[in-house]
Amino acid sequence: MATNEMERAPTDINRRGFLRQAGAAGVALLGVSALTPEVRAEGADRGAGAGGEPVAAAEPGIRGARLNASSVMGDATQLPPPITRDHAVHHEIEIEAREVEAELDAGTRFTFMTWGGQVPGPMIRVRQGDTVALTVKNAKGNSQPHNLDMHAVYGTGGGSDATMVAPGGSATERFKCMYPGAFIYHCAVPLLDEHISRGMFGMIVVEPQEGLPKVDREFYLGQHELYTNEPYGSGGKLHFSNEAMVREQPTYVLFNGAAYGYTADRFGALQARVGETVRVFMVCGGPNLTSSFHAIGNVWARCWPQGALANAPMRCVQTQPVPPGSCVVADMDLPVPETIKLVDHALTRVTRQGLLAAIEVQGPANPGIYAASP
Amino acid sequence: MATNEMERAPTDINRRGFLRQAGAAGVALLGVSALTPEVRAEGADRGAGAGGEPVAAAEPGIRGARLNASSVMGDATQLPPPITRDHAVHHEIEIEAREVEAELDAGTRFTFMTWGGQVPGPMIRVRQGDTVALTVKNAKGNSQPHNLDMHAVYGTGGGSDATMVAPGGSATERFKCMYPGAFIYHCAVPLLDEHISRGMFGMIVVEPQEGLPKVDREFYLGQHELYTNEPYGSGGKLHFSNEAMVREQPTYVLFNGAAYGYTADRFGALQARVGETVRVFMVCGGPNLTSSFHAIGNVWARCWPQGALANAPMRCVQTQPVPPGSCVVADMDLPVPETIKLVDHALTRVTRQGLLAAIEVQGPANPGIYAASP
Amino acid sequence: MATNEMERAPTDINRRGFLRQAGAAGVALLGVSALTPEVRAEGADRGAGAGGEPVAAAEPGIRGARLNASSVMGDATQLPPPITRDHAVHHEIEIEAREVEAELDAGTRFTFMTWGGQVPGPMIRVRQGDTVALTVKNAKGNSQPHNLDMHAVYGTGGGSDATMVAPGGSATERFKCMYPGAFIYHCAVPLLDEHISRGMFGMIVVEPQEGLPKVDREFYLGQHELYTNEPYGSGGKLHFSNEAMVREQPTYVLFNGAAYGYTADRFGALQARVGETVRVFMVCGGPNLTSSFHAIGNVWARCWPQGALANAPMRCVQTQPVPPGSCVVADMDLPVPETIKLVDHALTRVTRQGLLAAIEVQGPANPGIYAASP
Repeated sequence: MATNEMERAPTDINRRGFLRQAGAAGVALLGVSALTPEVRAEGADRGAGAGGEPVAAAEPGIRGARLNASSVMGDATQLPPPITRDHAVHHEIEIEAREVEAELDAGTRFTFMTWGGQVPGPMIRVRQGDTVALTVKNAKGNSQPHNLDMHAVYGTGGGSDATMVAPGGSATERFKCMYPGAFIYHCAVPLLDEHISRGMFGMIVVEPQEGLPKVDREFYLGQHELYTNEPYGSGGKLHFSNEAMVREQPTYVLFNGAAYGYTADRFGALQARVGETVRVFMVCGGPNLTSSFHAIGNVWARCWPQGALANAPMRCVQTQPVPPGSCVVADMDLPVPETIKLVDHALTRVTRQGLLAAIEVQGPANPGIYAASP
Repeated sequence: MATNEMERAPTDINRRGFLRQAGAAGVALLGVSALTPEVRAEGADRGAGAGGEPVAAAEPGIRGARLNASSVMGDATQLPPPITRDHAVHHEIEIEAREVEAELDAGTRFTFMTWGGQVPGPMIRVRQGDTVALTVKNAKGNSQPHNLDMHAVYGTGGGSDATMVAPGGSATERFKCMYPGAFIYHCAVPLLDEHISRGMFGMIVVEPQEGLPKVDREFYLGQHELYTNEPYGSGGKLHFSNEAMVREQPTYVLFNGAAYGYTADRFGALQARVGETVRVFMVCGGPNLTSSFHAIGNVWARCWPQGALANAPMRCVQTQPVPPGSCVVADMDLPVPETIKLVDHALTRVTRQGLLAAIEVQGPANPGIYAASP
Repeated sequence: MATNEMERAPTDINRRGFLRQAGAAGVALLGVSALTPEVRAEGADRGAGAGGEPVAAAEPGIRGARLNASSVMGDATQLPPPITRDHAVHHEIEIEAREVEAELDAGTRFTFMTWGGQVPGPMIRVRQGDTVALTVKNAKGNSQPHNLDMHAVYGTGGGSDATMVAPGGSATERFKCMYPGAFIYHCAVPLLDEHISRGMFGMIVVEPQEGLPKVDREFYLGQHELYTNEPYGSGGKLHFSNEAMVREQPTYVLFNGAAYGYTADRFGALQARVGETVRVFMVCGGPNLTSSFHAIGNVWARCWPQGALANAPMRCVQTQPVPPGSCVVADMDLPVPETIKLVDHALTRVTRQGLLAAIEVQGPANPGIYAASP
């Protein structure tokens, strides 16, 4: 993989997040003693220890990284780990809107709007019953106001009213994660379809209190479509087209903001091993297209439609619809070595619009299951 | 709300329906003694009392109202109440096709085709096992023949063959509601896509025999798309475009036949209270587009995909696909005061094509769940 | 029905398949003794008898037929029967890519690409745990290389890497059917969207080990869309349009590769009887459009979304989304005589793009359920 390891370190946002959430000590250091009285009063709800004092998160509530410096491509392997605790905690999470010119394909540039400099934005991972103080920052130098609508939030605009900030500003809201699921978050200013199309979406996973079935490896992907004046394959800088967006006819459809990013032709495939079970968290930003999410050469052994983790998963699903503004959580077993290709099975988006992510599964052959030359 | 209360009285159709169905006395008055022998023979099936005599409906089987005189906008709060009885009854229901020129937006007119003068058509609500004598009228002065296909009906065309009527005519069919669900009804003449696009669709709810989980408030919405020669935002009268329909590229996408109808900018938001549970019955007329139905700032706590009430609901669904020619029944809890925005999360339809319905939820703040300024 | 009975005999492929799979004797004759050691070693897995010897299929694993000589229209009634055995077997199946110029509508010709000369390709039907040796042939005289991706297969490209063959060539792979479901198979060369749009898709049903609920009649349909330079309704020969495919705006949307094939206007409706339960296996090839699959005048009494047979079916579904690259298995009860019309409820595809399949249900009226003239 042509990966610049320098870029795989967590971004600024996440470094800060890590420090802040590294444990009680780190939290105290960063001033969580400034928690509001309301939060303190909720200590008991959050499964706190003796005395009902608030308990701060010991695990990172947010994690993400750009794969490399040239693109906004989110590193699909950099996501917060599964939650193992059995009690609620409080998270202080910060996320920054960043407008970034970057390559969507080799030699083709575009002004993305992002969360944390990456597409999709860093994954936030919490547990049902946790509380979150979410600070939305709008980077100085940005051209637009931004805000954040999170589908995990009860509240006007999913929090977007409270988090509307001008460039250079910030705003904080607090919410309790009342229901489980994998939810999209996205910018929700009046021209939100353009901002999402430019890349402003990510995922928050609210794990159910009993947790999720254990897997060996997790990947994090985001699909969205991009509308431009210039045709597919143009070099240079592309410009956003409202007209194409109204027609719902994108120029590019992308995983993680990069054309064919996770393929051998570009930055290399994702990696896994025979015998593992792999979980894919996929958020469909849209703004308009439904994804028909399929793994070529495999099947979704377990699949939670719409990311609705409160329900039992479906079994053995070949192609799962993922509406814009929704997610899917879907597991694969890997009984044989193969190259799996993740696609939207609306295949013209794959052949002619840039959408593809490969996973190389290495390990011993299992000719009882598959033999290419029997 | 800029609501003309005069308009909120039930329409002619529904006044008639109410009289007819107001009780055994009213029914007798209107000649239900003319029931066919077959119907009499079914008395026992319908849970009739001693002697197997047919029992007429004591509750209104159909209800609807236009919100105001200028538009065809169906009043989302005027729908038949939940069914509380434990036995089957017979309904005599009449519905009239009406072609109506009305405002789809301020200063923008269009010739709608409607059921009962409103979009969506009046809701019909019955119980699995009930029988319905449905009379379809085609208002004198209409330009086109019309008929009615109801997805709750076993029979050719869902009844559309039997109910094909020329302007000024009427036809009656009878059916038994064999299976539960929330179903679309729609005109099904050979150019049915145009007629539906012009507004000819509504919902029949066939409640399961055990009823539906109780809620505090119900709303009734219909999404459809409208294809015109003129671009979005044009004033004056718009004209239907077959070419745009074949491209599946509408000019407007609407709830209840009005651009941004249930918003503060137009006729005001719907109203609810903190602590309530609200049920939304949404029918997607199409004729072509799938809705990705989402409540901004909330979640579908219970959701019956495709309106298929025979199944257990899904829990905690953010965005539910609703295909054209289908429905969804979906509940929200309202733990905090907020303005909820109902949308198709294919967001360009919201920002640039007229689709939005707001619900203002009033009541005490609950900062343990959401605090805009913690 | 204007059916040429000559055409209803199984095609070459299937005649060969029948011979090969007609029993142990036939299998031996055709050289199954050449099974690889690995296959022999799996005898016990496949429910073989004493000694762990492989057991060959006694039922046809593949069956199909073209309805007539002028079109590529697959005969919806020619599919392998349900599986009744309680043990695994081994299948030797051969399928041939054929490029065929044929009429898509009366007087309108097109160069289809097909499996076995028909659209959809012949249905393959096996049982979870069965093994399959699949030989893909590319007919001499074809213009293109082809291969086969089967969603039932664990392995790179769903087997398409191993089965890539030039015209005149063939390749064999072997796989075990590890998970149940109704799955699409399709050509998966780099320009796969064009090949699928030209007709290269079919269905493999992997029945769960406990089998499927018994029904009285089964039909097999495939929906796909076709993109051409010429407008809908043009006579003569049509030419494929990449531009229209990128816009996702097809000229035709078809069941079984023929405009309005199963209607009285063309080759006649499908036939069924009152009192039967009918199962429809529908594969959506796409390459791009989601079908909103509905039976006018009926309801899907049982429906397995995405063809995912490992799950309990949904009940009483009016309109089921079927993504491109997916399937649905859906049952109807037939309590009344009627003409059922199978459609994609994105209705402009029905009125103006060729999509419709009728089923005539004959038998005694049941006026207690439906009376057109009560």
